[in-house]
Amino acid sequence: MTQQRIVTLLTDFGLRDVYVGVMKGVITQCCLRQIASINPQLQVIDLTHQIPPQDIAAGRFALLNAYSYFPPNTVHVAVVDPGVGSKRRGVAIQFPGGFLVGADNGIFSGVLSVAPAVAAVELTNPKYWRTAHPSKTFHGRDIFAPVGAHLASGVKLEELGNAIAVDSLVQLSLPDVVVTETTIQGCIQYIDGFGNLITNIPEKELNSKLGFIKIKEHNIPYFQTYSDVAVGELLALVGSHGWLEIAVNSGSAKDKLQVAVGDNVILISNTYQ
Amino acid sequence: MTQQRIVTLLTDFGLRDVYVGVMKGVITQCCLRQIASINPQLQVIDLTHQIPPQDIAAGRFALLNAYSYFPPNTVHVAVVDPGVGSKRRGVAIQFPGGFLVGADNGIFSGVLSVAPAVAAVELTNPKYWRTAHPSKTFHGRDIFAPVGAHLASGVKLEELGNAIAVDSLVQLSLPDVVVTETTIQGCIQYIDGFGNLITNIPEKELNSKLGFIKIKEHNIPYFQTYSDVAVGELLALVGSHGWLEIAVNSGSAKDKLQVAVGDNVILISNTYQ
Amino acid sequence: MTQQRIVTLLTDFGLRDVYVGVMKGVITQCCLRQIASINPQLQVIDLTHQIPPQDIAAGRFALLNAYSYFPPNTVHVAVVDPGVGSKRRGVAIQFPGGFLVGADNGIFSGVLSVAPAVAAVELTNPKYWRTAHPSKTFHGRDIFAPVGAHLASGVKLEELGNAIAVDSLVQLSLPDVVVTETTIQGCIQYIDGFGNLITNIPEKELNSKLGFIKIKEHNIPYFQTYSDVAVGELLALVGSHGWLEIAVNSGSAKDKLQVAVGDNVILISNTYQ
Repeated sequence: MTQQRIVTLLTDFGLRDVYVGVMKGVITQCCLRQIASINPQLQVIDLTHQIPPQDIAAGRFALLNAYSYFPPNTVHVAVVDPGVGSKRRGVAIQFPGGFLVGADNGIFSGVLSVAPAVAAVELTNPKYWRTAHPSKTFHGRDIFAPVGAHLASGVKLEELGNAIAVDSLVQLSLPDVVVTETTIQGCIQYIDGFGNLITNIPEKELNSKLGFIKIKEHNIPYFQTYSDVAVGELLALVGSHGWLEIAVNSGSAKDKLQVAVGDNVILISNTYQ
Repeated sequence: MTQQRIVTLLTDFGLRDVYVGVMKGVITQCCLRQIASINPQLQVIDLTHQIPPQDIAAGRFALLNAYSYFPPNTVHVAVVDPGVGSKRRGVAIQFPGGFLVGADNGIFSGVLSVAPAVAAVELTNPKYWRTAHPSKTFHGRDIFAPVGAHLASGVKLEELGNAIAVDSLVQLSLPDVVVTETTIQGCIQYIDGFGNLITNIPEKELNSKLGFIKIKEHNIPYFQTYSDVAVGELLALVGSHGWLEIAVNSGSAKDKLQVAVGDNVILISNTYQ
Repeated sequence: MTQQRIVTLLTDFGLRDVYVGVMKGVITQCCLRQIASINPQLQVIDLTHQIPPQDIAAGRFALLNAYSYFPPNTVHVAVVDPGVGSKRRGVAIQFPGGFLVGADNGIFSGVLSVAPAVAAVELTNPKYWRTAHPSKTFHGRDIFAPVGAHLASGVKLEELGNAIAVDSLVQLSLPDVVVTETTIQGCIQYIDGFGNLITNIPEKELNSKLGFIKIKEHNIPYFQTYSDVAVGELLALVGSHGWLEIAVNSGSAKDKLQVAVGDNVILISNTYQ
């Protein structure tokens, strides 16, 4: 049996240019070079390439919500890298779900907050890069994609560079959720392509506080799913990633409420009403 | 020989969020679990993820125009599902081209109008879901993707749930085309990314009526291909999917005519002029 | 060992419609038909499908900057084809990197300017098409995708049609770069999704002229990478594809400068200042 190995790609490159295609070309070349006569069955899966340019927090959110749906030993290559070519470190991290490869700028800190790092290296060994003289602007192509391909092909983490302390990895934290007896105060951490407003309030905080949600001047009722309200109506619900969301049945809460990432939301318990 | 099995994906999720990537992760996990030590060679192909949100008719059109280009036994998973979490049924359907998996909301009724269903089941067996407690808002991830992966891996249709009558499946019909001696009256059923206006008039209706096409105040001549008219000029032609289309050579008929899906078109025969 | 064969796809179809998915379906069908009982391990990689509609020059640029990152014997299928259905030729070309398949409209002339054609044929043999009666508007589906799949499956170039002279292939040239003692005059040849302005001035011309770059009324300093200037500031640098680029650290040079493809840029040497 040949083992299926998966590399996922997450970038802010968009799909207009050939940057993503080029990374996939490099991955296939690494496989050919590395494995010679065996068939690695390496499979590349796109998470998304439409992270807003340089938005590390959005990349962190996307990766956090996707990683757990992949098999063990998956290699996640994430390239949202405004500091490319500067002193920021390139890293590879081993964690319970497999491996993370990219710039050490906090993009992995969401995943690692729930599935802590086991080991990490700085990518200092050019043997596993596309070239010993990488571009100053495209480490996705020259370092991260080839390192990801090599990891997925069986190269050991420690061969990729010098070990670093896992607690030295850059953290990027969400604003705190403030919980009182009768309210939970949070904010919008992400707005998805449907216009659903995803807050930073996790399902587990909701236990006894299922009242209504206040955002701007709106009081929004809590339901199980979109179709529990009429088409065009607002509701709050726990979305598929486990966060409290504000949505519109068959519509866009973003358009209806004219809100943005960072705006406050307050959940007010029924007992308090 | 390992047999290559294909799963196609069609959704309204867009490519900004990780929803599509997550479905692919789930598919790979199902394969690993289901097939253990054999290599399923499962191949996932994107049809499109940019169906306008909740637009079942657009999904129906896309699937109708794509399915016949895939090998036998292909599994088409389609997720345009505004009723997710409500009482609407999840279904798997066997048809001459392979299998269809998704919500029973009419999205498959275009395909089934030309390639009728052989058998159908409601997806009631959680054994083939990602979890026995699926999210109320993301059955694509928790039910449809894993069911599609299992079908493609050789699980029998009847194992997926209770048999249902194929004539109970929800129908979604196009507006009728009205044919007279001298005219054919139809409408725009879809506008593609080039701005081509695709009508609901099929090629077979055109036989003796090749005159000109009237839309709003415009009389548009009929030709074989775009370059039969000057750059920037309007023409009507039979498009690649076999429908009468209105197009502009190297331009957008949508922008030039300022029309929308549902607008009327009339084909007027030469003999009538 | 089964050999991994790669087909890349580059089109102006966008991702809203099923056109790209349909081409992939056709490729899988060709593989099944051609190879019967062996497993071709054919892998399809998207370069981009968001070439602006009918923009052959943008397609030429994209392919030029991507081809060299793929393994030998890769088949690049490129479909930006405003002349589809007219007398323009369909061609397959052997070159040092593998094969090029598409319309003979200049889209391959960038690649061939640096990796010259070895042999070429006009696609006249319908045996390797999807159908002997191809659509007048979608040769990507009916001719180019199946020919690409057959080439990748081992069909010989000369079986695909009549040999043609490689110097008869349509050329599409960039505006000339004018080099003087103290200046290099070029233009913007492409603007990428980040808003980086990619000029037609290649790195090798820059040797002794590293001064500043003039575009409109702006004098832009030359640096190694984005983070060498403050966030929001303009810089010039050599981009990852080896061209002189104008960029903004964590921003869009296109938005800041309000420029377009074709606009002039002048590099002025330090000695001249």
